[in-house]
Amino acid sequence: MPRARFVAGDWGTTNLRLFLCDEAGRVIEELAGPGAANTTGRFPAVFEQLTAPWRQRFGALPAVLSGMVGSTIGWVTVPYVPCPAEPAAIAGACASPNDGRVLIVPGLSCRNRFDAPDVMRGEETQILGALELHPALRTGRQTVCLPGTHTKWVVLEDGAVTEFVTAPTGELFALLRERSVLVHAAAAAATTPGDAAFIRALDEFERFPHAQLLHRLFECRARRLAGELADADSAAYLSGLLLASDVHGALAAPGAVNGAVHLIGAAPLTALYAAALTRRNRSGLSIDGGAAALAGLTQVFRSLPVRMLAHGG
Amino acid sequence: MPRARFVAGDWGTTNLRLFLCDEAGRVIEELAGPGAANTTGRFPAVFEQLTAPWRQRFGALPAVLSGMVGSTIGWVTVPYVPCPAEPAAIAGACASPNDGRVLIVPGLSCRNRFDAPDVMRGEETQILGALELHPALRTGRQTVCLPGTHTKWVVLEDGAVTEFVTAPTGELFALLRERSVLVHAAAAAATTPGDAAFIRALDEFERFPHAQLLHRLFECRARRLAGELADADSAAYLSGLLLASDVHGALAAPGAVNGAVHLIGAAPLTALYAAALTRRNRSGLSIDGGAAALAGLTQVFRSLPVRMLAHGG
Repeated sequence: MPRARFVAGDWGTTNLRLFLCDEAGRVIEELAGPGAANTTGRFPAVFEQLTAPWRQRFGALPAVLSGMVGSTIGWVTVPYVPCPAEPAAIAGACASPNDGRVLIVPGLSCRNRFDAPDVMRGEETQILGALELHPALRTGRQTVCLPGTHTKWVVLEDGAVTEFVTAPTGELFALLRERSVLVHAAAAAATTPGDAAFIRALDEFERFPHAQLLHRLFECRARRLAGELADADSAAYLSGLLLASDVHGALAAPGAVNGAVHLIGAAPLTALYAAALTRRNRSGLSIDGGAAALAGLTQVFRSLPVRMLAHGG
Repeated sequence: MPRARFVAGDWGTTNLRLFLCDEAGRVIEELAGPGAANTTGRFPAVFEQLTAPWRQRFGALPAVLSGMVGSTIGWVTVPYVPCPAEPAAIAGACASPNDGRVLIVPGLSCRNRFDAPDVMRGEETQILGALELHPALRTGRQTVCLPGTHTKWVVLEDGAVTEFVTAPTGELFALLRERSVLVHAAAAAATTPGDAAFIRALDEFERFPHAQLLHRLFECRARRLAGELADADSAAYLSGLLLASDVHGALAAPGAVNGAVHLIGAAPLTALYAAALTRRNRSGLSIDGGAAALAGLTQVFRSLPVRMLAHGG
């Protein structure tokens, strides 16, 4: 059995996943816990209780955590690192709520391509991991997309995060799917890249790529009324419109980068984005979001100065 | 006291407003009732009961109703009139659930500028009224905007509705305001055209008018985190972004018409759209939505053949 060396944790708003890892970041054991939103004021107790069995078996171990655990609703507020942000600068700005036994990765802030402030927290760790898993990402200008509730479109230059923009694509999809009259939610299954209605929406958006999304959304309803779209397909059509708008807007924006887009996330979602990219003659390379997070946390662990790990191990 | 000649009714999804009118459409009395969504299967009874006092005093009167009362959730389904639709064709396609005592105005359908089907029901009556109230609208190509839950952007050619597109601007605003993490809803008052945050959002959108709305929405949150926007102003900022996207997209779309935009609706909302139009160097002329509906119902009443009114009056 590999030797346990550290605890890696992805502590988001709604979920906590903790991994007992060896020196190389290989997972020995894992467990789940409550998200940051349900841990207010109890972070030390929750963490100590969850990791007690590991501590009993392997002694005190250092822990590296990322996500909302470092936000104002988290254990300790770790200030955002401003862009451009080198990987070493991100790791070097970790903060600890308890003299170095637990280290929390900072989020990133930037002034985005629309001259607006933007922030991420958690995705920076996945980006660090993707840079480890895919060394080609470390050279030149690269586009990374992390689709989700708040999709992040990230520009890398020689491995540093120079700029990013957030699109609340997933949040908008969920709200419109569940609570608007546009979509017949009850009848809808999860969308897949092969769904005809999803592909059709990509194609229809592409015919007028400069249209504002607002003027295409009502189609989800009107095409049903006109008998052109089945109720059960309206959510997939909505998904196609949203992703087409997201991909078009991100790739047409000032400062957008040519070449393949690296998609970091859960496979079903990155596959949808890859399909939308293909429709625009761009290739999408999917990277598993969980593997990227773990690689990023491991990279941060390895880059920590020895003094910061003195309390653990 | 003027002589009561007909009953005009605006029967939408959530509200019914009935007006006792003279020959010229002047309101003698009015009353409110339940929307179509709460009247399923009881339309004749609800209508007869509400209008019984008027019938007792003035005898049987013809009634002209518009809105969702003519939809599949209504009293009787009145088929959409396809565009291009002349005012006379709209009035001529009224249907009755009861041998002509009650007449229901049809909605309109079209293939819009994005080659998608689109529909309206209720707004066509307000457009008929606006054509009566503002004769200048009857000549040449004109743009009419009816802002609301589902904003309609309408093109008129010599008084006929040739095409329109729907934007669920109001629905999206309500969902994002109440249920997203983007806006701090509790702190927000109703937006007015003079709100600095509303104007600022118009200006910020205008700097990158070809951006997709998706990539600007997160600003409502990030600017708060960055200390650039007060929580109480985030709903006004969201409103500005949505209206800027709506106005920009409608005026930049293929087939868009130059000149003033006639805005039909409630004054607080048309004033916001007028401000967004002004920001793009276009003028917006506001027409009261209630007055337009009443004028439209009156116009339909007057244009009905005598035989259709034989049962009333």
